[in-house]
Amino acid sequence: MKRLSAFLCLAVCVLLASCSGGSGPSIIRTEVPERPAGQEDMLLYAAPPLDTVRIGFIGLGMRGPGAVERMCQIDGTRIVALCDVEQDRVEGASGILERLGRPEAAEYYGSEDAWMQLCDRDDIDLVYIATDWKVHAKIAKYAMEHGKHVAIEVPAAMNLTEIWDLINTSERTRRHCMQLENCVYDFFELTTLNMAQQGLFGEILHAEGAYIHNLEDFWDEYWHDWRLLYNRDHRGDVYPTHGIGPVCQALDIHRGDKMNVLVSMDTKAVNGREYYEKHRGEAAPDFQNGDHTMTMIRTEKGKTIMIQHDVVNPRPYNRLYQLTGTKGFANKYPVEGYMVDASKVGELMTVPSAQGRQEKVDIENLSAHSCVPEDVKQALMEKYKHPIQKELEQTAKKVGGHGGMDYIMDYRLIYCLRNGLPLDMDVYDLAEWCCLTELTAISIENGNAPVEVPDFTRGGWDRIDGYSHAFAE
Amino acid sequence: MKRLSAFLCLAVCVLLASCSGGSGPSIIRTEVPERPAGQEDMLLYAAPPLDTVRIGFIGLGMRGPGAVERMCQIDGTRIVALCDVEQDRVEGASGILERLGRPEAAEYYGSEDAWMQLCDRDDIDLVYIATDWKVHAKIAKYAMEHGKHVAIEVPAAMNLTEIWDLINTSERTRRHCMQLENCVYDFFELTTLNMAQQGLFGEILHAEGAYIHNLEDFWDEYWHDWRLLYNRDHRGDVYPTHGIGPVCQALDIHRGDKMNVLVSMDTKAVNGREYYEKHRGEAAPDFQNGDHTMTMIRTEKGKTIMIQHDVVNPRPYNRLYQLTGTKGFANKYPVEGYMVDASKVGELMTVPSAQGRQEKVDIENLSAHSCVPEDVKQALMEKYKHPIQKELEQTAKKVGGHGGMDYIMDYRLIYCLRNGLPLDMDVYDLAEWCCLTELTAISIENGNAPVEVPDFTRGGWDRIDGYSHAFAE
Repeated sequence: MKRLSAFLCLAVCVLLASCSGGSGPSIIRTEVPERPAGQEDMLLYAAPPLDTVRIGFIGLGMRGPGAVERMCQIDGTRIVALCDVEQDRVEGASGILERLGRPEAAEYYGSEDAWMQLCDRDDIDLVYIATDWKVHAKIAKYAMEHGKHVAIEVPAAMNLTEIWDLINTSERTRRHCMQLENCVYDFFELTTLNMAQQGLFGEILHAEGAYIHNLEDFWDEYWHDWRLLYNRDHRGDVYPTHGIGPVCQALDIHRGDKMNVLVSMDTKAVNGREYYEKHRGEAAPDFQNGDHTMTMIRTEKGKTIMIQHDVVNPRPYNRLYQLTGTKGFANKYPVEGYMVDASKVGELMTVPSAQGRQEKVDIENLSAHSCVPEDVKQALMEKYKHPIQKELEQTAKKVGGHGGMDYIMDYRLIYCLRNGLPLDMDVYDLAEWCCLTELTAISIENGNAPVEVPDFTRGGWDRIDGYSHAFAE
Repeated sequence: MKRLSAFLCLAVCVLLASCSGGSGPSIIRTEVPERPAGQEDMLLYAAPPLDTVRIGFIGLGMRGPGAVERMCQIDGTRIVALCDVEQDRVEGASGILERLGRPEAAEYYGSEDAWMQLCDRDDIDLVYIATDWKVHAKIAKYAMEHGKHVAIEVPAAMNLTEIWDLINTSERTRRHCMQLENCVYDFFELTTLNMAQQGLFGEILHAEGAYIHNLEDFWDEYWHDWRLLYNRDHRGDVYPTHGIGPVCQALDIHRGDKMNVLVSMDTKAVNGREYYEKHRGEAAPDFQNGDHTMTMIRTEKGKTIMIQHDVVNPRPYNRLYQLTGTKGFANKYPVEGYMVDASKVGELMTVPSAQGRQEKVDIENLSAHSCVPEDVKQALMEKYKHPIQKELEQTAKKVGGHGGMDYIMDYRLIYCLRNGLPLDMDVYDLAEWCCLTELTAISIENGNAPVEVPDFTRGGWDRIDGYSHAFAE
């Protein structure tokens, strides 16, 4: 609660102000700091191309070593430095470089501030941050202030203070600040995004995403229980980015539309608290994070989003990823399915039959009242495979990392930096996807009140016409 | 909008009052009329047993004829009278009686008030109402005032005025007022309810329900376009009962818990409006009902519910029906799945193998991180088949009606009336499930504000310990 006191004070002030004015329904508004004079936004920002991207890694516990390994397999990278509090983790990552025939990197460890020395070097272009959530933004800000682009694991920032700090720092220093949201590169999400962009679903009106993943086998792996402690201390959707990220790309958020308002609601904490008490051997009567949290969001263009978070109940893994359009529908869990606008599909598709012949797919099957049959789905997914996927799928499967999506994410980051292109995800994506952590808590702690989602672009949300990936000529 | 003006005025008054008091977050409260002196609630109410239930049917367009046909196949019923505005529909229903060897019934038709003559008769015990939504409550009130029990198609009431009217009339006249919500009798829902009541899911914390059904093939069937016109004129979840009904039974609503607050959000109207304009050949710039509407509800005991409504977008039929518990999980669409608490399952189950032998099911499979395998699911569903299902499934499948659930619904209604038992659904269920129609509109029209769900039992919600079906000795 203490964490929120400043904001709640502000929120209640705004609430009372809007009520006492007799203006009817109330919405809680958080403060939007004015853009400092002379500072420009980072929309479509492209930095000068880099022939080789020199990388420093901070945080080598869970996600870090895999990232080191993947970056070693991407052309045009050089791993310059490795940092973690724990010496053995840095040595483990150095072992990866050795095994893959990469030059030795400088090592930093032994204190919780060791990362500063890495950021102080002048031979690093990109700092790749995979620490615990609570220090993501602090490290990223320092790194940008020391001339580095930053890529930050999810969630990159945990509250609005951190988010506005990252935005202002990125705008001021003209350094990229990208969140490492890997799920936007999942095969189904990429393919479906391509189908959406080709108009197969008509206008997308409603979308759903989630992080539903029972973490009972994972809690032990978080350094000093940081994730469990974070859940103990915070209500709200504290891990929203895997759900909201792919959905925002499909809805062109800050590329023609923007999120205006959210409302959130949670259950009481039962399993989370019980696990905490058993695991740590201490009572937690004030355990904050509800076992299940859900959030509704409405956009400027009249579309809606629903996001869920559940890491403690016995449920199958589920990120939802569902798009409802005026002409079609896509759904990822528990079984992938599509309904599409037949008029947009173009020529009849062929699909390999069981006998290996090419057979025509029945286009009438596209407009039925249920998802298309499996053979039509396969044909659609082949026909609408995303260009990025086409280019990378063989390598991605070989390198691995969540079925290849981690590799594609890292590859795209390096590709865009080397070609001097805008990155796939900018600092406003980071802000929009991360702001749910605090805004959902504000909504819940104020009786499920509507809360304004700030325009993090400060006026630029409508300037870009639709989401797209950048490619070199 | 006009429809809501009285309530909005009230709502805004309450809102302003609560704000100007400086009490922080605001919730919109609707008026809860005081229970008239000497009037008692209808919780667990049982009417004197009836040897034969004499039935009058009002509304013989879509759902009515099927109900007549089913009731003809249930012992202890007598179809006394049939009523519809249209003569041919009454004659059609009379034909059903003749075909099934039942005595002739009195016929009423020819005016929109013909139903009054049916209600005025003194040889009817039960009036079965399957008219359009807008006259459900008016007819039911009049019928109860003329000494009849009533069973009303969904939604039984469209706003809070109608709902409080039905509650007060039922309490005052001591007549049953049941909503004909058939989905609570679906095989999966009944089985899952039984599993929930046996503790297989632990404590249920979150539940979901929906009515997602593209009605493009049905709109023509509604008499004078009444359903399309209703959607034109109303925002909010105008058809919530199939989603909320089964979920409320699983959560013991007004049997130990109650819904406290809801928040609703909709998309803009695109397909609905387009269909209306094409179908009626007239512009509808003010078409109200959003293409997709979702609602979050929180209960007194800290559980949450999510309900959706979508009748215009291209999507597979889906009522969601999902339960998330502390020890298990159930999900109906698009594929049925369970996770359960193995410790509650009891002795190892056997399941018929493909070869017809009885094979033991691997109990370890119950506690995995994914839904149980198909053979275990089948064994669970057989073991936890609901007693009502066991008794009726052969007959139900033969008589039919949405896979048998309509028959079970009608059978249970007659069974309880004949045995002088409380009905499976009381007037407070009707109120709780129907109140979403107006409360969601209030939330949406007030910027997605939280709205209080009234305690329709007026204090009795915690007196009954859990939901149950009544059975004769």
